[in-house]
Amino acid sequence: MKYSIGVDIGGTNTVLGLINNQGVVIARDTMLTKDDNIKWDGFFKRLFEKVGKLTELHPDLEPTGIGIGAPNGSHYSGMILDPPNLDMGNVHVPTIASKYTHLSVVLTNDANAAALGEKMFGKAQNMKDFVVITLGTGLGSGIIANGKLLSGHDGFAGEMGHIIIETEGRKCNCGKKGCLEMYVSAKGITQTVIDFHKKYPDDYLINTLINSASQNGEWGYIDGRVLDVAFDEKNETAYKIYSYTAEKLGLGLAQVATILEPEAFIFYGGVSKAGNRILGGAEKSMNNNLMSFQKGKIKLLLSGLHPGDSGILGAASLVYNEL
Amino acid sequence: MKYSIGVDIGGTNTVLGLINNQGVVIARDTMLTKDDNIKWDGFFKRLFEKVGKLTELHPDLEPTGIGIGAPNGSHYSGMILDPPNLDMGNVHVPTIASKYTHLSVVLTNDANAAALGEKMFGKAQNMKDFVVITLGTGLGSGIIANGKLLSGHDGFAGEMGHIIIETEGRKCNCGKKGCLEMYVSAKGITQTVIDFHKKYPDDYLINTLINSASQNGEWGYIDGRVLDVAFDEKNETAYKIYSYTAEKLGLGLAQVATILEPEAFIFYGGVSKAGNRILGGAEKSMNNNLMSFQKGKIKLLLSGLHPGDSGILGAASLVYNEL
Repeated sequence: MKYSIGVDIGGTNTVLGLINNQGVVIARDTMLTKDDNIKWDGFFKRLFEKVGKLTELHPDLEPTGIGIGAPNGSHYSGMILDPPNLDMGNVHVPTIASKYTHLSVVLTNDANAAALGEKMFGKAQNMKDFVVITLGTGLGSGIIANGKLLSGHDGFAGEMGHIIIETEGRKCNCGKKGCLEMYVSAKGITQTVIDFHKKYPDDYLINTLINSASQNGEWGYIDGRVLDVAFDEKNETAYKIYSYTAEKLGLGLAQVATILEPEAFIFYGGVSKAGNRILGGAEKSMNNNLMSFQKGKIKLLLSGLHPGDSGILGAASLVYNEL
Repeated sequence: MKYSIGVDIGGTNTVLGLINNQGVVIARDTMLTKDDNIKWDGFFKRLFEKVGKLTELHPDLEPTGIGIGAPNGSHYSGMILDPPNLDMGNVHVPTIASKYTHLSVVLTNDANAAALGEKMFGKAQNMKDFVVITLGTGLGSGIIANGKLLSGHDGFAGEMGHIIIETEGRKCNCGKKGCLEMYVSAKGITQTVIDFHKKYPDDYLINTLINSASQNGEWGYIDGRVLDVAFDEKNETAYKIYSYTAEKLGLGLAQVATILEPEAFIFYGGVSKAGNRILGGAEKSMNNNLMSFQKGKIKLLLSGLHPGDSGILGAASLVYNEL
């Protein structure tokens, strides 16, 4: 039986899996994306150790190739260009991978991989126009238009996290101000909590969240599960934080829908676990920011795939498409 | 020899032409889009009188069909949905056209028609990913992605005039605030002049422009030619007006480029005659609002086709594609 290896490089975690040509995940593993100071060299060394361990478990299977989804990964050039959330520089993936494997390696943007996965095996199997949004450390997007991946002239289309939704808004790592990702992502919600802290310095939930974000003396991101629980217990502050986030997300969705008019936005990744706590408000805000003839038509859905699998399934499907 | 009839319905003027299957415009005519109070009924009556006169001149030719590009025209449903700049209501084009012709009628958005025209006969013949922007009374856009028209799930994609570029900005006819069209279009530039008038009530150019906009006791739009001449004579106020417009346009282009990453934006329509007076500044502003890896790669071009022909050629090419 043939299978391929799918790798989904995220801002925090990297997931890898062995996937057969029916889309079945035969084996999977995860690792931290950033775990040392030797940047991409260290990353690929660790990755291929993991790949080796997985494949050794299935000596009967014949590998077809490796598909990789990475932030700022270009399908055209094979380059990963210094993803803002990682600070690991540039890397030419086929070159570095050839040190460790004789298999062919195909690269795309992590969100594009998630979109392909959703189209082949998820909720978008019957859709021709949709956008997958990966909500995690940052906000990524993969666009399918006319049934095909929209990669743009140079392979870098779909950078929805960096559309500007607030003139002179929060400063983003990318150098711009007011990017959607600075409001809607682990990073964005953490900043919202910090802003709320200035306004409500004694709020119990805010202080709990701020504490959840400071680990090992360094700043991380707030623990979304704490926020979800507080929201479900009808905590007013949690409601305000998610309302604010939903309003900004809806504005961003409306911008993209005004241009692409997709059938659905499908949400995927860590922060999307907040689910309808955010999506209900986001749908309202999106419709408020659309023209009358586009209102009420666009669905907001949660990925139907097992968390983490959409990305590796998409990365693996790249292999079946390309090689 | 076969030919088709291309019709380009604009916010102010409607252009029609007989076009052969080599893309040659055999005959053309124009009319005001809004000329009476009987709305679409009156419009189509006048249109088919014009069509009749043109075809009578060429009794030897065999008509294939009629392609129509209209603001808010849906290829899928055949409906034109109450374009904000016209205030003429909804109309089902195949139904109303059947009163006047036995030929098949294909409808699309006016900007989509311009994009098809540019791809078949203009500067985009070798491009797979580009956006045509029609600058006139309003701002429209037609998107080609992966070599195909991007029409969205419901036929209403590409409403770039209505992306929000200024939070809480100018109120738009569409009901939203801060739409790109309210800054970059005849309507938008006129509003900019009115705003400048509050700041510089005695400025000679501003007053000349304001006078050029008030005709028959009603408000029209400023005369762009006056502004172009003043700019070329290095008038500082003209420079400020176009700089302001270019900055807003660049911000809008960057938003769209962040999502689509086209090879080029191609400008077409009345206001685009201002050409590099606006596009130079717009390119700078666009690059300032793009992420580093997208900067400097996207071209801003003026349509190479005869003004007015791009729309009718595109509308006609719809006929050759579809029927």
